[in-house]
Amino acid sequence: MVAVTVWNEYRHERTDDAVATVYPDGIHETIAEALADDHDVRTATLDDPDHGLTDAALSATDVLLWWGHEAHDEVTDRVVDRVQERVLEGMGFVPLHSAHYSKPFKRLMGTSCSLQYREDGEAERLWVVDPGHPIADGLAESIALPETEMYGEPFDVPEPDRLVFVSWFAGGEVFRSGCCYRRGNGRIFYFRPGHETYPIYEDERVRRVLHNAVEWAAPTEGSPRTFGERE
Amino acid sequence: MVAVTVWNEYRHERTDDAVATVYPDGIHETIAEALADDHDVRTATLDDPDHGLTDAALSATDVLLWWGHEAHDEVTDRVVDRVQERVLEGMGFVPLHSAHYSKPFKRLMGTSCSLQYREDGEAERLWVVDPGHPIADGLAESIALPETEMYGEPFDVPEPDRLVFVSWFAGGEVFRSGCCYRRGNGRIFYFRPGHETYPIYEDERVRRVLHNAVEWAAPTEGSPRTFGERE
Amino acid sequence: MVAVTVWNEYRHERTDDAVATVYPDGIHETIAEALADDHDVRTATLDDPDHGLTDAALSATDVLLWWGHEAHDEVTDRVVDRVQERVLEGMGFVPLHSAHYSKPFKRLMGTSCSLQYREDGEAERLWVVDPGHPIADGLAESIALPETEMYGEPFDVPEPDRLVFVSWFAGGEVFRSGCCYRRGNGRIFYFRPGHETYPIYEDERVRRVLHNAVEWAAPTEGSPRTFGERE
Amino acid sequence: MVAVTVWNEYRHERTDDAVATVYPDGIHETIAEALADDHDVRTATLDDPDHGLTDAALSATDVLLWWGHEAHDEVTDRVVDRVQERVLEGMGFVPLHSAHYSKPFKRLMGTSCSLQYREDGEAERLWVVDPGHPIADGLAESIALPETEMYGEPFDVPEPDRLVFVSWFAGGEVFRSGCCYRRGNGRIFYFRPGHETYPIYEDERVRRVLHNAVEWAAPTEGSPRTFGERE
Repeated sequence: MVAVTVWNEYRHERTDDAVATVYPDGIHETIAEALADDHDVRTATLDDPDHGLTDAALSATDVLLWWGHEAHDEVTDRVVDRVQERVLEGMGFVPLHSAHYSKPFKRLMGTSCSLQYREDGEAERLWVVDPGHPIADGLAESIALPETEMYGEPFDVPEPDRLVFVSWFAGGEVFRSGCCYRRGNGRIFYFRPGHETYPIYEDERVRRVLHNAVEWAAPTEGSPRTFGERE
Repeated sequence: MVAVTVWNEYRHERTDDAVATVYPDGIHETIAEALADDHDVRTATLDDPDHGLTDAALSATDVLLWWGHEAHDEVTDRVVDRVQERVLEGMGFVPLHSAHYSKPFKRLMGTSCSLQYREDGEAERLWVVDPGHPIADGLAESIALPETEMYGEPFDVPEPDRLVFVSWFAGGEVFRSGCCYRRGNGRIFYFRPGHETYPIYEDERVRRVLHNAVEWAAPTEGSPRTFGERE
Repeated sequence: MVAVTVWNEYRHERTDDAVATVYPDGIHETIAEALADDHDVRTATLDDPDHGLTDAALSATDVLLWWGHEAHDEVTDRVVDRVQERVLEGMGFVPLHSAHYSKPFKRLMGTSCSLQYREDGEAERLWVVDPGHPIADGLAESIALPETEMYGEPFDVPEPDRLVFVSWFAGGEVFRSGCCYRRGNGRIFYFRPGHETYPIYEDERVRRVLHNAVEWAAPTEGSPRTFGERE
Repeated sequence: MVAVTVWNEYRHERTDDAVATVYPDGIHETIAEALADDHDVRTATLDDPDHGLTDAALSATDVLLWWGHEAHDEVTDRVVDRVQERVLEGMGFVPLHSAHYSKPFKRLMGTSCSLQYREDGEAERLWVVDPGHPIADGLAESIALPETEMYGEPFDVPEPDRLVFVSWFAGGEVFRSGCCYRRGNGRIFYFRPGHETYPIYEDERVRRVLHNAVEWAAPTEGSPRTFGERE
C-alpha cells in the first residue's frame, strides 16, 4: 500500500471563517479522507515540529501531497532540502493549486513558477489533453467546476514532460493545469484545482485525479543512482 | 533569403462563393503576400502538375506551408514520400488549420491527428504559453480572433517538443494551437488558425506568427546524416 | 494478466544454420518463454495467415513485441494499418533490434529510423541513463554484453520522450538503445539488443528488460478519445 | 552582436602549475579569444567584486558561459539569484564541464547534477546524436578528443529538451555531453568537454561548438512575461 503524506499549511482554516466553513478540519483532512480507502495516509502541517516532515517521516513517505498558500516563506530551508533530496531518491510529489509557489516546487522546477490569477468564482472546465495518461484513468473528456479561482498563462515552469490537463475559464483564460515532471527518480505532478474557499476536494472527479496521481507518482524499484569517482 | 513554398489545395476558392469572397485569389496568394516582403516566395496548388511539388521544386524549398481541407486524399503518395524525405533532410514544414489531416502531416506524426470541431463562428483567444519561443516574438500575451471554427481536444498528435499556443473558445473548449516538432533535421510547426471563410490570414498578428514560423523552421547547416554500414 | 503477442519474421531460423543453432525454435519462442511466467503469451509469425495478426488477435493483445530483419517489406500494409490503429487505441508496442526498420515502427515514428551498423561481434555495454524509469527496475548500472552487432548514431528517430539506455561499443560508437514514446494512448519502447546470431534473449538481464517493458507498455484505462463534430 | 560574458573561477590557473601551463592567462581568456571574432566578449572571475557579475554586468549580457570547479561554494547566493533571474528573462547560459556542479546550474535544474568521473587522461569520442540541431552546425559526425577526464552516467539532470552530444570513453562509459534546456525565456546548454589540464578549448572543433552554442542561446524578442492579478 502506497504511503501518503498530505501536507497542509493549515492557517486559513483556523483564521478565516469562509475557509473554515468549507474545510472545517483543514484541507489536509479532506484530502486524506479522499485517499484513505486504499492508501496508508498520514497528515502533517506547518505548525507541527519540523513541519511534520522529519527525516523519519519523509523516509517513510512514498508520495507527498502539498497544499500551501500564505505562509510559503515559513517553511524552513532544511525541510525543503530534505524534500528535494527525497524526491530525487524517488518519492512522488504532488503540489496542489497555490503550492505552485511553494518552496519545494520552486526548488525542483528552477523557475519562478509565476502565473496570472483572478479570484472571481468563475466557471472552469478542465480538459483532458492526454487521454492515455494514467492520471486521466476513468475520467470523462472534461471536468466542469462551477466556481474556481482563475489561474492564467503564462505559467513560468519548465515545459512539462507530459501535459495532462488544460483549463478553460469563463473569463477568457487558459492554463496548463496538470503537469508531469520527473526529477531524479521522483515523479512530480502539479495539479491546479483546489482553492481554499471552494469545496473542490469534495468533488468525486477531482478525488479520482488525486487518487490516480498518487498511484502514478509512487516510486518504482529503479536501478542504482551511484555517483562519484569510478575506478 | 529563405525560400518559401506556399501550397494550397485551392478548390474551395473556385467553387464556394463564401470562400471566394474572403480569398478571391486563393488562400495561397494571401499567405504568399504576407511573406513576400522578406522571403523568396512561390506558390503551388493541388491541380498543378505533380501538385507543383516536383523534386526540383521541393529541393529548392527551405520552408513549405500547407493548406488543405476537402481533397487531402487526392495528394499522391509519391509527393507525400518526397515531402517527408525533404523534411527529414531539413526542410521546414508548416501545416495550417485543416492541414492537421493532410497526408504529409499524418505521415510525419505517426498518429491519426484527429480532433473535435464545431463550425459556429465563435470567438477564439490564442494564448502564448511559451513567451520565450521565437515563434512568439513580438506578439502580445494573447490574440483575440472574433470569428473562427472551433477545434477542441483531444488532439491526437505526439506530445509537442514545445507548445507555443493554447486556444480558448467561447463555447468552452481549449486546443493546443501551436505545436513544434522536429523530425530528422526538419522543423515542423502546426498552427491552428485559418478557416477558409474567415479572413484570418489578413490579420497582422497572424501574419507575424507565419513570419516567425518560417524563420524558425528554415534549415540550419547541421552535421552529416550518414547511415549504413561502418568499417 | 497482460496479454502479450510475440511477433517474429521467423525466416533466418529456418534458413541459416548459425541462427538455427542459437534460436532453434525461433526467436519468438525464446522471447515467449522469457515472458511466460507472469504473462498470457502467444506468438505469431510472418508466414501465418494475416501474419498471425488478425483483427481478433490484435484486439486481444495488450502488448505486441516485434522482431524482424530481412523481410520487412513482406508485411502487408493492411496489417501495419491495424497495428498502428491498435497502438493509438492503447496497445503497447516493443520493437526489438532490427525492427527499427519494421513497417509499424517507421509508421509510428514518421522518420526513416536509419542508423549505422557493423556486424563484428564486438562488446557492448548498455548503460542505464534513467535509473528512475520502470523499465530499469532491478537492473545494475550497466549490462555488459560480450558479443553484439554494433548500432551507431545518428539514429533517425524523433527525440524520445524518455531515454532509458545508451550503449557503448568497443569499436568507438554509442547508441540510444532504449527509447520510450507515446503515440495516441499507446506506449512504445524500442530496445536495441538482440541480434539473431547471439543468444541475447537468453540473458537474464535482457529478459528483465523485456519483462519490465511489457509491464510498462501495457494499456491503462485512460479517458475517452472522442473525435469529430461537437454540438 | 551578441554580448557574451565568460565567467571563470580562475583559481587553478594561479595555484597549479599543470593548469597554468595549459591556460596561462586563465581558461576564461582562452574561451574569450575563441569567441572574440564575432561577439562582444568580456570576462569576469570569482575574485572580482561581486564576482564580476553586478546587476549592470548581467543586464548587459546576452549569453553567460561559466567555468568553475573547486570553489563553487564561494559564489554568493545573491549572484546566483541574479543569474537565475536573468536566465528566466532570456539570458543564455552555457555551463562547461565541471560547472555541472556550479550553483547556478543546480539552481536552474532542481536536481543534484551528480555524475561519475575518472581522471585518467583517456580518449573521448563526442558523437552528434542530433545532427539537425544548430549547435551541431558544421561539425563532423563525431569529435575525437585524445585525452580527457571521464564523466559517466547516471547524470542527475532533468531529461534534456534536446540531447545533442553523447560521449564515448575508452574506459567503457557513456555520457550525455550536450544537453539543451529552456527555463523561462532563457536557453541553457550544458557542454561536457573542458578539463583544466587538457587544452580542450584550443581545439577548433570544440570552439565551433562554443560558437554555435552562443548563437543558439542568445535571447530572441519573445512576448510579454506578465504575472500577477488580472482584471
